[in-house]
Amino acid sequence: MRIGELSKATGIPVPTIKYYLREGLLAPGELTSPNQASYGEVHIRRLRLIRALVDLAQVPVAQVKEIVESLDADDIPLHDQIGRAHRALTPARKPTASPEARAAAAVEVDALLTRRGWTVEPEAPALATLIETVAALRTLGQDNLVAFLDAYAEAVERFTQLEVEAVAAPTRDQLAESVVIGTILGETLITSMRLLAQESTSANLWR
Amino acid sequence: MRIGELSKATGIPVPTIKYYLREGLLAPGELTSPNQASYGEVHIRRLRLIRALVDLAQVPVAQVKEIVESLDADDIPLHDQIGRAHRALTPARKPTASPEARAAAAVEVDALLTRRGWTVEPEAPALATLIETVAALRTLGQDNLVAFLDAYAEAVERFTQLEVEAVAAPTRDQLAESVVIGTILGETLITSMRLLAQESTSANLWR
Repeated sequence: MRIGELSKATGIPVPTIKYYLREGLLAPGELTSPNQASYGEVHIRRLRLIRALVDLAQVPVAQVKEIVESLDADDIPLHDQIGRAHRALTPARKPTASPEARAAAAVEVDALLTRRGWTVEPEAPALATLIETVAALRTLGQDNLVAFLDAYAEAVERFTQLEVEAVAAPTRDQLAESVVIGTILGETLITSMRLLAQESTSANLWR
Repeated sequence: MRIGELSKATGIPVPTIKYYLREGLLAPGELTSPNQASYGEVHIRRLRLIRALVDLAQVPVAQVKEIVESLDADDIPLHDQIGRAHRALTPARKPTASPEARAAAAVEVDALLTRRGWTVEPEAPALATLIETVAALRTLGQDNLVAFLDAYAEAVERFTQLEVEAVAAPTRDQLAESVVIGTILGETLITSMRLLAQESTSANLWR
């Protein structure tokens, strides 16, 4: 199909599709003449994914590009491919804790990972974020919440187990896509459900 | 203490503190002379909170302002106060689903809320986000994940229960602060833990 039909099929305006093509988020169509290209199902699928990442999960375009590139890198082990998408999802954060608070939190988090039996790279960006968060919670006097780290980890393991059960894709490409969608939209799912569960609890307790 | 000492105590540069004062994120100090103000413990506490929201949870400054204002609105029921902070945390998102997909997802989400017994306002922004997410997952062919909506909701209820147990604050102001910190940094905690649990699972399955 031509770009106009691709726009109709996805509801995405032609200039936006051209922008995604220029930014390398969307693969070029097959040239049918020097200034006309033809697009297919794979473009519709990719545009829907880009749209969900940009508009719904509110991932910045630069990160979407990295995520999409990680999906196309199917010549590396699946674990490394997922790792690339993960890193694109975890922007570097300015450290906020004092060096002492961070060192103490690092010891706590390390013990947590050992207790849970989680195997993670020491330089995983999410590890730094977790350590900063524990340090911030302690600095802000929220020790009560930190006391529940293991219970949090247990609930998180439950999500991960569900997500692994959910990704039963027939091909390697679709598996990678499912994992990435599950990671990103799964978070939107958890976040919005959590606000609703909190609202409901708050209505019962504090209205 | 003077602004320079406040800067030393928190590690936040004086120009940044002045910016927070101008933006209304931080209450003015007590004037001790026409061009000198004095700051106290309450300012240190608030600056630490602002810092955690901006740098760690990466909440935009405009939203931080609304959150901080909600904390200072202690003349309304606690439930309404928390609702204000919640709304500041849930930016309006561009709809991505087709009207048909959205209508079907709304029915699914409505049934979920009824099954879980969650009482939420029909115009809660998180409700719109949840509906859009379910619609997007279906559009992207991730029906497997949608099949686990109830299991997700169950794990989310566990978080909320932990968080309610954790907020045992002696005063109403501290209770509101705890709830808001728990909501926001709790999310950073869950998000970073989830990426780590996924990395560990992926290492076991796909390396």
